[in-house]
Amino acid sequence: MIVLRKPYLLYLGSATAPTDAKTGFGLRDWCGTDVLGEWSYTDATVRLGLPRLSPAEAAAQGAGSIVIGVAPVGGVLPDTWLADLETALKSGLDVVSGLHTRLTSFPRLVAAAQAHGVRLIDVRHCVQHSQCATGARRSGKRLLTVGTDCALGKKYTALALTRALKDKGLPASFRATGQTGILIAGEGIPMDTQVADFIAGAAEALTPDNDPLHWDVIEGQGSLFHPAYAAVTLGLLHGSQPDAIVLCHDPSRRCLEGYPQVLIPPLAEVIALYLATGKLTNAKIRCIGISINSSSLDEPTWRQYQSQLHSELGLAVCDPMRGGVDALVTAVRAL
Amino acid sequence: MIVLRKPYLLYLGSATAPTDAKTGFGLRDWCGTDVLGEWSYTDATVRLGLPRLSPAEAAAQGAGSIVIGVAPVGGVLPDTWLADLETALKSGLDVVSGLHTRLTSFPRLVAAAQAHGVRLIDVRHCVQHSQCATGARRSGKRLLTVGTDCALGKKYTALALTRALKDKGLPASFRATGQTGILIAGEGIPMDTQVADFIAGAAEALTPDNDPLHWDVIEGQGSLFHPAYAAVTLGLLHGSQPDAIVLCHDPSRRCLEGYPQVLIPPLAEVIALYLATGKLTNAKIRCIGISINSSSLDEPTWRQYQSQLHSELGLAVCDPMRGGVDALVTAVRAL
Repeated sequence: MIVLRKPYLLYLGSATAPTDAKTGFGLRDWCGTDVLGEWSYTDATVRLGLPRLSPAEAAAQGAGSIVIGVAPVGGVLPDTWLADLETALKSGLDVVSGLHTRLTSFPRLVAAAQAHGVRLIDVRHCVQHSQCATGARRSGKRLLTVGTDCALGKKYTALALTRALKDKGLPASFRATGQTGILIAGEGIPMDTQVADFIAGAAEALTPDNDPLHWDVIEGQGSLFHPAYAAVTLGLLHGSQPDAIVLCHDPSRRCLEGYPQVLIPPLAEVIALYLATGKLTNAKIRCIGISINSSSLDEPTWRQYQSQLHSELGLAVCDPMRGGVDALVTAVRAL
Repeated sequence: MIVLRKPYLLYLGSATAPTDAKTGFGLRDWCGTDVLGEWSYTDATVRLGLPRLSPAEAAAQGAGSIVIGVAPVGGVLPDTWLADLETALKSGLDVVSGLHTRLTSFPRLVAAAQAHGVRLIDVRHCVQHSQCATGARRSGKRLLTVGTDCALGKKYTALALTRALKDKGLPASFRATGQTGILIAGEGIPMDTQVADFIAGAAEALTPDNDPLHWDVIEGQGSLFHPAYAAVTLGLLHGSQPDAIVLCHDPSRRCLEGYPQVLIPPLAEVIALYLATGKLTNAKIRCIGISINSSSLDEPTWRQYQSQLHSELGLAVCDPMRGGVDALVTAVRAL
């Protein structure tokens, strides 16, 4: 399990386009109370609207980590940022990155971290050896977001649902399984870097025994219909032992992104396979709703699609970005 | 891909019980033409019936590797063996091990390997970063052995079937996915040590384009019904893109070994889930037969079980250890 030290100072490097600072905006929006401020190199033009704090100022206010909230152009960390990160380490902050480039590949950062007793955390590269799954049932309730494909709203749906459950007074925790999710939650296990034998075991470790009425809302990964990543999805499904799944889908996709030969089956068939495989570790697994990324549909088309899908499948259908997830909360409560 | 240097000298250490030298016997039986001889410490009493050769003698006859064919009591490599292995390295042989203890954890072996330009190969610990699966179809035919559980004959069935296909003049290759299989084949990819995102990709790399009539017979791993290892099984299934599967089963097992709460479903249901998931990367996947480990059944019971299963499922049913795999060869030819 990766455990980060909150609160954060967000670092935006030399960001000049808001899309480059997607992670920064995501952290501001989803864990704003854990973010003290923002910092960037002098050439940055993007701002998150947070107090501008130097690493030393943030450390003085209790910050535990500086988190890189921007993707550098070309994927390479410029030297100018390295100086800022070194300053952060000297101020007593951990440096946390979800980039492909490893922080630990820069000797000056490694040396500074060692000298000041702080950590370099490459969230994307934490290969950890977990235990094998036991398959034993655990107390508490679990919900897993699953998908017809990658990158269509599984994390967003889980975050929105966790927030909505808490707003209604239900005890719930977002459980992070990918880089950005881990930055938001401050802890989690990156499923895609687990060693094959330990995927399900990692999912068990991520969602331990809990209060009987508590909901773990688990960020899904990949898709059972993905030629490359289905293994990760199945291990996460088995280890999570979900009582409920929510299927995430984008109706503008006919095939898997990057795999034109792989058509997405009818949603009823998709749900059936998730339930047929998921029942191995939780016989009571059921699908409680559909979360749609409807950004490609205009309002009347979305209304029609939503209503048609609801009649077809007899399930709650929502778009977290368009009307929220109240229908899913109602379905969770009905369980 | 792990590629070993054949031919082998087999090392039996201090083996006094034949069961401890299981790997040695397996290599003698399944790749005998690649084995020059055997060697052991003076206190060993187990013999494989091969020429007794010192590492220097084996090297002089062209050996490429000394392979540890025995499991040490307590799992720890005794110092006495280390001296023998060091001698082998000095003779120019790679040292190959499938044990949990890493060869590379012994500084004297690391130093000797480096000094003599040879390799220490820990087959069980080769974590390799493969590519992500493309899902693209490849030329040639593929057969994967799958199971209701672990450790009930998937490797043995694949080896026996490969041998039988070759005996009948059909071009075939055994494709190894586990430690012992890799030692036998001299190459392969250990699926259980792959990083999660690359399991299917590793299976694709293991079974590349081939002649249209050539059969890759792929050693299965785990089981789609295993709470801990199903992810490995699914990734291997997707990446292998098998035209045919053979289901391996042991009728004495009612539940998964070590998982008393997980009952093995009826075989028809098992086959259905393998086909439902396998069709993602090969729409023509079919089950062509059942391989039974019938060691728990007496002769009349086995005959009755075999005939009943055959009528029930309409598939070839055999036990490779009890009558061979000719029925599977016939089924492969019929495809």
